[in-house]
Amino acid sequence: MDTGFSLLYVTAPSRDVAMTLAHALVGERLAACANLLGPIQSVYWWDGKVNDEPEVALILKTRTELVPEATERLRALHPYSCPCVVAIAIDGGNPAFLGWLAAETARI
Amino acid sequence: MDTGFSLLYVTAPSRDVAMTLAHALVGERLAACANLLGPIQSVYWWDGKVNDEPEVALILKTRTELVPEATERLRALHPYSCPCVVAIAIDGGNPAFLGWLAAETARI
Amino acid sequence: MDTGFSLLYVTAPSRDVAMTLAHALVGERLAACANLLGPIQSVYWWDGKVNDEPEVALILKTRTELVPEATERLRALHPYSCPCVVAIAIDGGNPAFLGWLAAETARI
Repeated sequence: MDTGFSLLYVTAPSRDVAMTLAHALVGERLAACANLLGPIQSVYWWDGKVNDEPEVALILKTRTELVPEATERLRALHPYSCPCVVAIAIDGGNPAFLGWLAAETARI
Repeated sequence: MDTGFSLLYVTAPSRDVAMTLAHALVGERLAACANLLGPIQSVYWWDGKVNDEPEVALILKTRTELVPEATERLRALHPYSCPCVVAIAIDGGNPAFLGWLAAETARI
Repeated sequence: MDTGFSLLYVTAPSRDVAMTLAHALVGERLAACANLLGPIQSVYWWDGKVNDEPEVALILKTRTELVPEATERLRALHPYSCPCVVAIAIDGGNPAFLGWLAAETARI
């Protein structure tokens, strides 16, 4: 079922960077809320070799129609040249929470 | 591919609350398993301002057809008036694990 | 929107096992990157009772077409007889990152 809402999963180099991203996206109502998970450990290809570095993960909840704009804002604020920002469709859940998501991401 | 299974992503104010939710949903076979992640830090709109509070996240795995009932049970048990409960479709994975998910959420 | 990319969510008994899985899948280009979250606490049915055990979670990012092969490789490497490996569709996100995901999982 397409609820019209999505999660954005983002990784960041530090807690401070992740909190800056979270407060910006939520403050600007490009997301209704953000959960910061971590520290996490990331294994990834970069510069032709497998790297193994500490990071932090961020899960933001927003309207699917805002995903492109939220992604652009994250790219502008993020210190990486190619940040991990992936969107996952929300298929159901607590109707009252989804209503709250809609209200907190409405353009005033 | 619609496997007929879903993740439920839930946030809770504390580890104790999250474990109570996990044991209730799994014990009542509304989910086959639950993973408690955290502590997490949450940034969200409430009472007209951006809040920044510690929480815990819970990922439950269940049948998609049980999502409404599991959501209602989470709402009944949760201390929040409007708890974050969002469902994400599982699109594939280990067939043996999905078989186990089905078996452990079967109504006996 | 079907981007052709997926997350794989996996649980493992320890950080060492999770890192071995992460380095194998990424090293063999069955995933472009992996994030290790945890420790987590898992509540689940096994041998007819509800268990409550520490684990670690792993989120891998790959091409959807590689999900079956990546799942088989995880099953072969995993110490559990029935490991949790579930796939979640990525529906959007940073185009540059998705391009990087494609490049790092290309068969050379």
